[in-house]
Amino acid sequence: MNTEKLTDILTKVAANKISIKDAAKLFENFTFEDIEFANIDHHRSIRKGFPEVIFGAGKTARQTAGIIEKMILNKEPILVTKVEEDKAKFLCLKFKNAVYHKDAKMIVICKRPHRIKGKGTILVLSAGTSDIPIAKEAIITAEIMGNKTDFVFDVGVAGIHRLFARKDIILKASVIIVAAGMEGALPSVVAGMVKAPVIGLPTDIGYGTSFGGLTALFGMLNSCSSNITVVNINNGFGAGYAASCMNRL
Amino acid sequence: MNTEKLTDILTKVAANKISIKDAAKLFENFTFEDIEFANIDHHRSIRKGFPEVIFGAGKTARQTAGIIEKMILNKEPILVTKVEEDKAKFLCLKFKNAVYHKDAKMIVICKRPHRIKGKGTILVLSAGTSDIPIAKEAIITAEIMGNKTDFVFDVGVAGIHRLFARKDIILKASVIIVAAGMEGALPSVVAGMVKAPVIGLPTDIGYGTSFGGLTALFGMLNSCSSNITVVNINNGFGAGYAASCMNRL
Amino acid sequence: MNTEKLTDILTKVAANKISIKDAAKLFENFTFEDIEFANIDHHRSIRKGFPEVIFGAGKTARQTAGIIEKMILNKEPILVTKVEEDKAKFLCLKFKNAVYHKDAKMIVICKRPHRIKGKGTILVLSAGTSDIPIAKEAIITAEIMGNKTDFVFDVGVAGIHRLFARKDIILKASVIIVAAGMEGALPSVVAGMVKAPVIGLPTDIGYGTSFGGLTALFGMLNSCSSNITVVNINNGFGAGYAASCMNRL
Amino acid sequence: MNTEKLTDILTKVAANKISIKDAAKLFENFTFEDIEFANIDHHRSIRKGFPEVIFGAGKTARQTAGIIEKMILNKEPILVTKVEEDKAKFLCLKFKNAVYHKDAKMIVICKRPHRIKGKGTILVLSAGTSDIPIAKEAIITAEIMGNKTDFVFDVGVAGIHRLFARKDIILKASVIIVAAGMEGALPSVVAGMVKAPVIGLPTDIGYGTSFGGLTALFGMLNSCSSNITVVNINNGFGAGYAASCMNRL
Amino acid sequence: MNTEKLTDILTKVAANKISIKDAAKLFENFTFEDIEFANIDHHRSIRKGFPEVIFGAGKTARQTAGIIEKMILNKEPILVTKVEEDKAKFLCLKFKNAVYHKDAKMIVICKRPHRIKGKGTILVLSAGTSDIPIAKEAIITAEIMGNKTDFVFDVGVAGIHRLFARKDIILKASVIIVAAGMEGALPSVVAGMVKAPVIGLPTDIGYGTSFGGLTALFGMLNSCSSNITVVNINNGFGAGYAASCMNRL
Amino acid sequence: MNTEKLTDILTKVAANKISIKDAAKLFENFTFEDIEFANIDHHRSIRKGFPEVIFGAGKTARQTAGIIEKMILNKEPILVTKVEEDKAKFLCLKFKNAVYHKDAKMIVICKRPHRIKGKGTILVLSAGTSDIPIAKEAIITAEIMGNKTDFVFDVGVAGIHRLFARKDIILKASVIIVAAGMEGALPSVVAGMVKAPVIGLPTDIGYGTSFGGLTALFGMLNSCSSNITVVNINNGFGAGYAASCMNRL
Amino acid sequence: MNTEKLTDILTKVAANKISIKDAAKLFENFTFEDIEFANIDHHRSIRKGFPEVIFGAGKTARQTAGIIEKMILNKEPILVTKVEEDKAKFLCLKFKNAVYHKDAKMIVICKRPHRIKGKGTILVLSAGTSDIPIAKEAIITAEIMGNKTDFVFDVGVAGIHRLFARKDIILKASVIIVAAGMEGALPSVVAGMVKAPVIGLPTDIGYGTSFGGLTALFGMLNSCSSNITVVNINNGFGAGYAASCMNRL
Amino acid sequence: MNTEKLTDILTKVAANKISIKDAAKLFENFTFEDIEFANIDHHRSIRKGFPEVIFGAGKTARQTAGIIEKMILNKEPILVTKVEEDKAKFLCLKFKNAVYHKDAKMIVICKRPHRIKGKGTILVLSAGTSDIPIAKEAIITAEIMGNKTDFVFDVGVAGIHRLFARKDIILKASVIIVAAGMEGALPSVVAGMVKAPVIGLPTDIGYGTSFGGLTALFGMLNSCSSNITVVNINNGFGAGYAASCMNRL
Repeated sequence: MNTEKLTDILTKVAANKISIKDAAKLFENFTFEDIEFANIDHHRSIRKGFPEVIFGAGKTARQTAGIIEKMILNKEPILVTKVEEDKAKFLCLKFKNAVYHKDAKMIVICKRPHRIKGKGTILVLSAGTSDIPIAKEAIITAEIMGNKTDFVFDVGVAGIHRLFARKDIILKASVIIVAAGMEGALPSVVAGMVKAPVIGLPTDIGYGTSFGGLTALFGMLNSCSSNITVVNINNGFGAGYAASCMNRL
Repeated sequence: MNTEKLTDILTKVAANKISIKDAAKLFENFTFEDIEFANIDHHRSIRKGFPEVIFGAGKTARQTAGIIEKMILNKEPILVTKVEEDKAKFLCLKFKNAVYHKDAKMIVICKRPHRIKGKGTILVLSAGTSDIPIAKEAIITAEIMGNKTDFVFDVGVAGIHRLFARKDIILKASVIIVAAGMEGALPSVVAGMVKAPVIGLPTDIGYGTSFGGLTALFGMLNSCSSNITVVNINNGFGAGYAASCMNRL
Repeated sequence: MNTEKLTDILTKVAANKISIKDAAKLFENFTFEDIEFANIDHHRSIRKGFPEVIFGAGKTARQTAGIIEKMILNKEPILVTKVEEDKAKFLCLKFKNAVYHKDAKMIVICKRPHRIKGKGTILVLSAGTSDIPIAKEAIITAEIMGNKTDFVFDVGVAGIHRLFARKDIILKASVIIVAAGMEGALPSVVAGMVKAPVIGLPTDIGYGTSFGGLTALFGMLNSCSSNITVVNINNGFGAGYAASCMNRL
Repeated sequence: MNTEKLTDILTKVAANKISIKDAAKLFENFTFEDIEFANIDHHRSIRKGFPEVIFGAGKTARQTAGIIEKMILNKEPILVTKVEEDKAKFLCLKFKNAVYHKDAKMIVICKRPHRIKGKGTILVLSAGTSDIPIAKEAIITAEIMGNKTDFVFDVGVAGIHRLFARKDIILKASVIIVAAGMEGALPSVVAGMVKAPVIGLPTDIGYGTSFGGLTALFGMLNSCSSNITVVNINNGFGAGYAASCMNRL
Repeated sequence: MNTEKLTDILTKVAANKISIKDAAKLFENFTFEDIEFANIDHHRSIRKGFPEVIFGAGKTARQTAGIIEKMILNKEPILVTKVEEDKAKFLCLKFKNAVYHKDAKMIVICKRPHRIKGKGTILVLSAGTSDIPIAKEAIITAEIMGNKTDFVFDVGVAGIHRLFARKDIILKASVIIVAAGMEGALPSVVAGMVKAPVIGLPTDIGYGTSFGGLTALFGMLNSCSSNITVVNINNGFGAGYAASCMNRL
Repeated sequence: MNTEKLTDILTKVAANKISIKDAAKLFENFTFEDIEFANIDHHRSIRKGFPEVIFGAGKTARQTAGIIEKMILNKEPILVTKVEEDKAKFLCLKFKNAVYHKDAKMIVICKRPHRIKGKGTILVLSAGTSDIPIAKEAIITAEIMGNKTDFVFDVGVAGIHRLFARKDIILKASVIIVAAGMEGALPSVVAGMVKAPVIGLPTDIGYGTSFGGLTALFGMLNSCSSNITVVNINNGFGAGYAASCMNRL
Repeated sequence: MNTEKLTDILTKVAANKISIKDAAKLFENFTFEDIEFANIDHHRSIRKGFPEVIFGAGKTARQTAGIIEKMILNKEPILVTKVEEDKAKFLCLKFKNAVYHKDAKMIVICKRPHRIKGKGTILVLSAGTSDIPIAKEAIITAEIMGNKTDFVFDVGVAGIHRLFARKDIILKASVIIVAAGMEGALPSVVAGMVKAPVIGLPTDIGYGTSFGGLTALFGMLNSCSSNITVVNINNGFGAGYAASCMNRL
Repeated sequence: MNTEKLTDILTKVAANKISIKDAAKLFENFTFEDIEFANIDHHRSIRKGFPEVIFGAGKTARQTAGIIEKMILNKEPILVTKVEEDKAKFLCLKFKNAVYHKDAKMIVICKRPHRIKGKGTILVLSAGTSDIPIAKEAIITAEIMGNKTDFVFDVGVAGIHRLFARKDIILKASVIIVAAGMEGALPSVVAGMVKAPVIGLPTDIGYGTSFGGLTALFGMLNSCSSNITVVNINNGFGAGYAASCMNRL
């Protein structure tokens, strides 16, 4: 349930186009709905401007389906993150308009075309080719939340002229997400070039002392550039979500 | 040197009010200036909308003074972070209009009143009384960068009604910084209430397994709320700076 | 062997209903029994009010069966924790009244219905749907130890109104177990609302800097609420056991 | 403000012994009071059965005094934890009935004698002599919260007969707190002997791989005995507080 | 090559029972032998009293076989540690008198019966049933190195009377190895009872904060009993080897 | 594109043997080439003396093939590191002259024989047989970059006479790479013997507290010998590459 | 109380040279003595062959003195470890025959000359000069427990010929303690040379990734030589104590 | 003793200009000299081309002086690293030609002017002003070992144009040392620009998750540029020493 739908119902009540009893029924699961293994937060769309998103890891396919079934009644976009391929197959069979983005491990169910709500462009950069799946998770999230997006992949600091060649696209962006594994140095360099807020998105690419992305994360947290904030390792969804909040300002 | 100053000089040159030679001299240290122990980035103000900030830790009082002496010629606000009290005394004696914020460990030299550049209000919350010094570092930074600020201190989750009582002020803010040590749970709760971007600012308050702020940091990075990004432990300056970048959008 | 059984035998001896020699035989494995790969602690039921529980991980199916065979003679409830599915199949075939709880990875063999020994209700909360398996481990343990239990799942802090809507059930509980992964913030909020002892039960749900539950664990240990104690990551059994000890007070 | 005081006022209002206006004034700071650097949680006493406790570390002496001044009006016991000696001197001068427990680093201001609220005895054991200060923090907390306490110090596992010699006192206790540093093995052994809930209280005694108490903490969390829950390193206050909650059941 | 064999050859040379040239040939690979992927240390038997032992992990089956082929010529016992089952099958087919101990993951090739070289008995204790495989690795090593051994399994501190019941066998041992996972408390208790050197052998049994044996290891290193030294996690071989060196004194 | 090729084109332009337009076309992808999922750094060969190397982990077989297709046009050696066997099969089918080194997990495509560019010999030592795969990664890299190489395997410090026996070959080398897992002590001993720069190459061989190579890495970083620098765990490629840079001096 | 003294009293009782009542009094504190802040383990001397040792860190000077006062009555050697200089001054004033070893931070009170109980020589090696204080702690402990000792300092692996020059002294020792910080490689090399048990004694010498001795500790635990066991960082006392137990075999 | 001196003596012996007996005396401490608390490695100068360097930390002023007294007889340069100011005063008083570099914490005693042995220039870059002390340690070491050096300070990635402005000096260097704290990104960028070997020198500048330099260290080890090797945190000496070995090639 979002603000539009809420206003719509209340207007109908005011105009006596709907009975109090029927309206009450519509409001029944207004704040949240208890389906034993989940308490779906239907109020989130009004409170935060985007409905609850389903964290796919650790839930069974059946539980995920159960939650989708309830949420789908609200006719708002549904996002499931970190979905393994076999679980995705089950869900795509069950929900016909579900789309599975295999590399980003995301399922999207979206009945209406996106209305652009963000003002500027959210730019997603990746340091390497191996960081693309996580970068895509950020892009898909930002797009479904109504933002224009752009991207440049594989512009890491070992050949920094590749980055500088894209200076125009970088300077034009309103929010920049930089996905990087290994030493995670790219966000520092990018943030040193722009006024826009930069979101560091560490990935688990690397081996040995990359510690599954910790080195990249800590590198970004210690950036000598100051307009950087950071999200959890591999949290492309969170980066895209936070960028959307910034882009709505 | 900032865009205003740059335009001013060029206008004078175009109007023959200043000789080419004199203009050249003014541009001499345009991009950066090498004073042996530092390469001052005079270009940063144009590139990033705010001049270079001096990281006070690890520099001698003399080195800090040397950098200030060069930067002061640009007539832009000067910020020195993480300055211990004895170093601050030396600098305040040398630079008469320097103000030392003891709890925030910051020196501010600011010749002109702030012009409000940010659109909305940056709200700074702290979970406890002990988190106030770091919260203040964020507030001072945000203010000198031209933002309206507000704050509420000591509203941690052990008595969560204190937080909810401030719901109005929280919902009105355009960017929210939440300083918290110990378990760092406050940003999650706040982010669950609002659409605005929330910046988690972990502090080193606590003992034992607080690990000097690591537990708070990791708690914030793992938030089940999605509009949170995070800065380094005790990096009040970085939180204020990033919030300013977001508030300018 | 428990206190009842012990008293029973001694009474019979006193009444000459059983020979000294037969009684001696009954007492043979009174304190513990050595079956080469295990020293079964038959005395534990008297000492601690509940018989030894079998930690299933790292034991072969054959070893587990060997221990059960000896314990089953005592006619007390048998609990095996952390049992993988294939091992469980072997054991359920062998012991006809064994019940396998797949999500909680527990085998229960319980000949007599539970007698309620605890006074109040043990309430188990989970922050998310993914935390349910560990929460169930706690519930099953508490029930087999003779307690009334109740539960609410998926009431994490990202939509905190879901928690407050259950305030009545929360305030009535005599002991509360709160299972949470990720940032582990829920126990702090719950403990801030009640007088009852709260047991933080960290789970390994999350990724990146959740460190397999460590972030949740440390968050709970650093709680600014004071009536929280904590058990090991994923130790649903331990949480249920400790809650039972508290509920017996 | 606690339930007694609340009832008293309401009774007076009902009996017209106090004007509505005066009663309102008394309720003014009922839930919490904002003194800029702190939001004092006056409601906590009703909600949790014990007033807010002041975490002394990281607060200035002046801030601590400011909070005490407001809380003292409620005529309930005041506890300040982790107070260094110099800060304590300042506070004891200002508040005449303040008592400073130097080893436990606690200040207690308590106008009325303790009413025993807990049912049984809370027993505090320490593994070594060096663990005593933290053990005392637990004892003082438990006593001020209205419990009978007892203690045995220096009964670590290197000479385990010292522990067994106190078996009677150990078996009689309703809740047991076990303070231990180094390898933290004592709680496991104690918990193996009793039915009562045992609270592991790790201390930072040791060197090298004791990691400031982490080894003791992790040892306790991994205990093969099941009736153990654990608090943060050196958190004697938390252990005493949680034990009180258990003892009230 | 060991001291016996060396003396034997030299004696024959002195007695002209063997030509200088033939003796030289026998000495050819005396110190070490280079087979490209390994430099076999044939001298070790003389230097250290026991021939080189093959660390099976990370070597291919073929490489392991190649090393065995060369070592087998010396007619001394051959030990291969940490051998997975498939590799073991390959080796047992190739070397007919090879014996694979599946739980201990060891291959033993031993042409001559053990001659008892150690003076006393090496006792191996395990805290739980799950620690037995690592305990067996220690027992097999100690036996092949010529020691009498004894063992008691599953006598952890949660039921400490099981340990005390074996006091006689414990007090008689000349060296004691104690295998324990989880909190690793058993070595401390055992060491507090005896004069003999105790070797703590941490295992990776446990979950969550057992950190794959680190908690047990650090617990043992911090033991408040002083006659404990420690080996690497799961290093049953090292514990057995070191115990043999002590038992030879 | 390398310096030779660059000079060749420019010479032709100067001699009018090629039109400006055709030359421009040849330079089109001079600095880098964007193929959507990668920005291939064609300039690297000129800048650094060796073309870009493909990090195989985390890239799909198709992405890797796409990058090779573009790079192969430059007729320079192509190196792909950390390639799993199944991916390698796909690539070897597609690129006929690709050679897969299974133990080193490397693919080499090299049309021209190596021209020796380095002056001296790069020697690669390994502490154990299990370290050979990583050592080979270093050897292959050094050879394809035009260096003479030599190696000695399995000369760890447990039988240090094996090392001293190779003193001549060690003293002659111009750069020495020492691969070691476990305690990583070999580089210290080797560096104490020579004037040449020594590169410590930690491997993940070991178990328990070897922490996947961290112990070896930290051992090397703390070497009391001073001519040691270190690369990431298992980074045989990096060791070989850096050794080549040193050998070119 | 030790075995001699025990036998003496019992003999007198048997011979009626002492009344039962007087004998009882002598036995009063036989097993342990409770002096409120300590439970002195008087029985340890019989059980373990050496009386309880006082861990000086974390105890006040007064507590330490109180324990010494009781123990001194037993006329056995008293050892206090990790004593800071100011505490030592207080104790040396109070106990006239106390000797303070400043570098080893130990106090020794020893009324009788040592009787040599160990059979062979305990050799203590140190890798560097900075490791000497911890090495001395081991030497003093071993000597007071009745062993012959010898030492060689500063023979680290950066100049390994210094070690080999002492081969004779090394081969003669019955137990060898090797103190080393930094990379901790020396024990591996030494253990590769001898049959005797080697005790690795890591020290906190080094900086950066020496992690206060952790790198040395882990290096020793991962030694490719097998006759090494290890004690806690800086635990010179433990090394000396364990070596004594081995030397008594 | 170095090769020159050795040749000189032998020549004199051959020419009968010195008696065998006197020559023998000169050779007495040829390989090493035992002064009880140190075994000075006089042979190192011949073996490694530079005499032993004294690690100042953890040695008393007296021990350091004792070692210098012996080494000074060799008339070779003496270097003491990590010397605190008070120790330095004592040593400078004692050794008149000792020079103390306060920021680099180094003492240099050097009787003869440096002979340039290295071929090219060793360039030392620092990311910030705070990294200068460690950078200086590297410069002083490289100079005393006979190399030409150059430096550029404060050219971190937050204003990367400062780095590119020095491209000429960077491209000319034969070996480059890059000192950086915080995120340690500078070495990656520099290494991407050059063919020369780059030595990453992590410093402990930063706070929070800089972990005293660990983040910088791990960032450098994970560099996506391949010609980087790394030394320990703050090991300016090691960086300078290793660079010298490379520059001698």
